[in-house]
Amino acid sequence: MMEGAAVYGLGVGPGDPELLTLKAHRILQGAAVVAYPAPETGDSFARQIVAPHLPRGIIEMPIRMPIADGSFPKGDIYRQAAETILSHIAAGKDVAVLCEGDPLFYGSFAYLYQYLAGQCRVEVVPGVSSIMAATAEIGQSLALRHESATIIPATAGIDALRTAFVMPGGVAIIKVGARLPLIRAALAEAGREAAAIIISHATLPQQKMMKLSDWKDDVAPYFSIILSPPVRS
Amino acid sequence: MMEGAAVYGLGVGPGDPELLTLKAHRILQGAAVVAYPAPETGDSFARQIVAPHLPRGIIEMPIRMPIADGSFPKGDIYRQAAETILSHIAAGKDVAVLCEGDPLFYGSFAYLYQYLAGQCRVEVVPGVSSIMAATAEIGQSLALRHESATIIPATAGIDALRTAFVMPGGVAIIKVGARLPLIRAALAEAGREAAAIIISHATLPQQKMMKLSDWKDDVAPYFSIILSPPVRS
Repeated sequence: MMEGAAVYGLGVGPGDPELLTLKAHRILQGAAVVAYPAPETGDSFARQIVAPHLPRGIIEMPIRMPIADGSFPKGDIYRQAAETILSHIAAGKDVAVLCEGDPLFYGSFAYLYQYLAGQCRVEVVPGVSSIMAATAEIGQSLALRHESATIIPATAGIDALRTAFVMPGGVAIIKVGARLPLIRAALAEAGREAAAIIISHATLPQQKMMKLSDWKDDVAPYFSIILSPPVRS
Repeated sequence: MMEGAAVYGLGVGPGDPELLTLKAHRILQGAAVVAYPAPETGDSFARQIVAPHLPRGIIEMPIRMPIADGSFPKGDIYRQAAETILSHIAAGKDVAVLCEGDPLFYGSFAYLYQYLAGQCRVEVVPGVSSIMAATAEIGQSLALRHESATIIPATAGIDALRTAFVMPGGVAIIKVGARLPLIRAALAEAGREAAAIIISHATLPQQKMMKLSDWKDDVAPYFSIILSPPVRS
């Protein structure tokens, strides 16, 4: 076990500041530095989530990057952020890195992790995923007993979507955006259009939730989730 | 919105009492009654997780049921538990129902929910799933960017396991037990044996974690998780 200051990848949950874990809350109170992904201009969603819990005087380190549908920040951004983080570690300062949802479930902490692993002590604190938040809001389980649970980004393409519906259980489709017609087609092919539900901003005041058949537009927010509960005989 | 006392399905996380959310903690402090699944004799795991947080004087309501590999409690147990819960609600008492991990992700709260919905106010508080806890411990993400994440119980059978490995992303196999040889066969067919990791009791002091190839036995604990990270080119 390495000694000295540590980096903590903190899952901060889906949006409601109360869905932070006790552990993430405790670590945040003791951290000297808080880092978080942020758009090139404007506010960071991860920071907004923990805003009620940020201790006074903590050093803030926004990791600014282009954030847009399906884009992928260049590796350099994470490498440079890792270098800055390691300079804080060298100065004996614990660094908390905020991650929306869970740090490693579609979370960008994985990119930072590769530059930090072996350089200092790194601990990942798991968080509540937006998938669990979405099922809690609709009051339906994605999987029970022997059923599978498949999470799939619409950006994976039509073949992967089709295979998802062959799995014996519930399907959650993420990264919706302009791919809504593709998703509707895959749901219709599988005979699962009627039961599908769309939800966006789960657990936040601006949450929207409805049957997908009631969503008339061909586009939905990129971070919407479409839930297709298991077909149970 | 219904008035009066409410039932809260509280996700209490994978095992570490600090992985409770602030929200679940707050609701537990205010509840008059705490209900939890328990074996026919002995301690409840869900209750153990929240033991450090249980307020004095709270009324405890164990829901005792046969808990064994793959067995499934009779519906009557949940119906009767729901009746007891509704009698507390009628007396104006808020009831917190403890659920290991997340209430609706392979969680038995779904069975109670069906008897409670429409009878009183029910709120589900999502929790940290053991899947996220497992990936945090191994420090590897199950899915990034356009990859899928598939969770599948070994009890779903070999065909479903094979289909899971066709999906373009990571796979987590749960409910392992005596089905380990079946899982090894599916992993070998997919060429994913070498990278698989087995973990049990994630986030608890008795946690065990190793490469699956180092696990020499043909059986593993029922609640082990086998993680097969995505194949990335």
